[in-house]
Amino acid sequence: MNRPTFLLAPDSFKESMTAKEVCIAMEKGLRKVYPEAQYIHVPMADGGEGTVQSLVDASGGQLYQKEVTGPLGTPVTAVYGIMGDGSTGVIEMASASGIHHVNQNTRNPLITTTYGTGELIRACIDRGMNKIIIGIGGSATNDGGTGMAEALGVRFLDAEGQPLARGGGDLNRLITIDISLLDPRLQEVQLIVACDVTNPLCGEDGASRVFGPQKGATPEMIQQLDDNLNHYASVVKQQLDQDIAYLPGAGAAGGLGAGLMIFTQAVLQKGIDIVIEYSGLVEKLKQADFVFTGEGGIDSQTTFGKTPYGVARAAQASGKQVIAIAGYIGEGIDTLYDEGIDAIFGIVPGASDIPSLLQAGPHNVERTCENIARILALRGQ
Amino acid sequence: MNRPTFLLAPDSFKESMTAKEVCIAMEKGLRKVYPEAQYIHVPMADGGEGTVQSLVDASGGQLYQKEVTGPLGTPVTAVYGIMGDGSTGVIEMASASGIHHVNQNTRNPLITTTYGTGELIRACIDRGMNKIIIGIGGSATNDGGTGMAEALGVRFLDAEGQPLARGGGDLNRLITIDISLLDPRLQEVQLIVACDVTNPLCGEDGASRVFGPQKGATPEMIQQLDDNLNHYASVVKQQLDQDIAYLPGAGAAGGLGAGLMIFTQAVLQKGIDIVIEYSGLVEKLKQADFVFTGEGGIDSQTTFGKTPYGVARAAQASGKQVIAIAGYIGEGIDTLYDEGIDAIFGIVPGASDIPSLLQAGPHNVERTCENIARILALRGQ
Repeated sequence: MNRPTFLLAPDSFKESMTAKEVCIAMEKGLRKVYPEAQYIHVPMADGGEGTVQSLVDASGGQLYQKEVTGPLGTPVTAVYGIMGDGSTGVIEMASASGIHHVNQNTRNPLITTTYGTGELIRACIDRGMNKIIIGIGGSATNDGGTGMAEALGVRFLDAEGQPLARGGGDLNRLITIDISLLDPRLQEVQLIVACDVTNPLCGEDGASRVFGPQKGATPEMIQQLDDNLNHYASVVKQQLDQDIAYLPGAGAAGGLGAGLMIFTQAVLQKGIDIVIEYSGLVEKLKQADFVFTGEGGIDSQTTFGKTPYGVARAAQASGKQVIAIAGYIGEGIDTLYDEGIDAIFGIVPGASDIPSLLQAGPHNVERTCENIARILALRGQ
Repeated sequence: MNRPTFLLAPDSFKESMTAKEVCIAMEKGLRKVYPEAQYIHVPMADGGEGTVQSLVDASGGQLYQKEVTGPLGTPVTAVYGIMGDGSTGVIEMASASGIHHVNQNTRNPLITTTYGTGELIRACIDRGMNKIIIGIGGSATNDGGTGMAEALGVRFLDAEGQPLARGGGDLNRLITIDISLLDPRLQEVQLIVACDVTNPLCGEDGASRVFGPQKGATPEMIQQLDDNLNHYASVVKQQLDQDIAYLPGAGAAGGLGAGLMIFTQAVLQKGIDIVIEYSGLVEKLKQADFVFTGEGGIDSQTTFGKTPYGVARAAQASGKQVIAIAGYIGEGIDTLYDEGIDAIFGIVPGASDIPSLLQAGPHNVERTCENIARILALRGQ
């Protein structure tokens, strides 16, 4: 096999390389041994950070910047993508409303809002998208997606018919949800929500209790936020005839999952499945002799919907062999061998600190892939 | 190839695993993929630290402890080995006279002596050895091997016929070398000296100037030591009719190379070549399908007589494929591919500090070899 076809489908290596950059480094290493081979790049993601970049890269699309309302109400510069098909937008809620926009002192889920995420959805609609993929991990918010909805025209009003303050802290005062001004174009747009959690909006496993603490909620705030989301759900049920409090995934991203289900044509799917579908991975797998995947870290968590797992499952279904690389290999990787990953290699060349390794990522990916190729080249001898 | 034969010929991973322990970890990993394979362990070394342990392990020999005179004249416990053939001893000079027996305050090449090394040679002769392999790296001494010779019966006398003080600092007073009491059994014993340096005893490239500083010699001491070794060489020439001052390797280990050539049946050889010969590597290579080697570190220095290089050259001559692993992969490894190493993998799973990595060595060797085997097992598919 002098001219094998290598399918390169890694995730990004966080803080070191985008998935596309990993593809390039992989090819560079493999090409030293197989200069005549075919190389197919499919930059991957799992619905989390890097999904916009990877889907844009995988499809030959384009990135756009937009100034939107950050989680604290001040402007932030967010990024979204239009895929190569020209009709599918890609958003990460974190880009507009993510936890990285707040700090230890400013984080406060009583006031943080998903308004900016709604602005990104509107931006995609303005560009004529009929599908919007939206990754909802890493939120700073607990507002039930009300901010997002407001940006799309919904009005949340108190007893005096005045708009509520943004954030989850004022939802106890919600009396009326006015959807008369909701952007009518939303009827024609499918939102595909990358969501790997099944938490409900309210209760013990709900958004406030499970994810509130990491957003800065104190025990008192958690009680208040959960009560408020319960009240919100009951108003939604009463006025919009939707019972969303205990739908799986409604509690994702501080209830943004619920908000998207209430106010848009949203379907929730596992992030990796969305990326596999929209990157065209399955079709491209047919041509591959070997599949290379990878991620910054591979460990026992990888089977919970991470990219190398998803790629391996898809490849296994196609009868393809998969080799994975990682910057960090944790314990519990043995189960991955059963899930279709044939071999796993670390790329780290020796004792080193994280900053140095992040910087040397491309070099280490290249060297490791070259040496894997050197072993593959022993075949048949 | 369901039952390949794996030849495992690594060096030790310094401060982490002996070569034998590396063999065991390698087999453990490979065996997960090839439970029916044959495994041949050939613990290797390159003439430096670990040579006694590896040759004893490779041959099924035995280690012995002996209290000898340390470099500062105080007793130290040294180790030597008898190989499985029962007639070949193995010594590392550093075990008796090494730099690790002195510290910043006590190091002083004017007085440090190789006397203990001579005692180890004598111990081997007492046990009936007819060959002694002696590794001479890591010395604390600059005495021209006079201490070693004294332990074997040679007397170094001053103008009054009195013995000199030990160490290189008193050799300017040498008038007479009396070999009448030199152990006569030495005539029947071949000393095979593992020596990778070609420095002469004296002059610009000599023992004192090149290696003196790392043993604590000041510029004044260096001049004195070099003068003294010159004087020593001239007395040897005059009284013993041997011209050793500029022989290659005479300057190894503070002139121990010279001393061994003057007073014993010594041949100097590259360390790795000695280990390859006495470990029986070449014969065992004939049975191998794959050769695994490795060392704590592999980098551009590896071609200068290090174990993975030596193993690869021997394997290449036998047409065998070689895979190397290392705890640290440095720059400049590309040339090793031309020298018979087919692939090189690091064993480090991620960002980590050296103590943790040293401790996790066996685990990381095992995991890496398992995954290399998993790639090999893709062969023929």
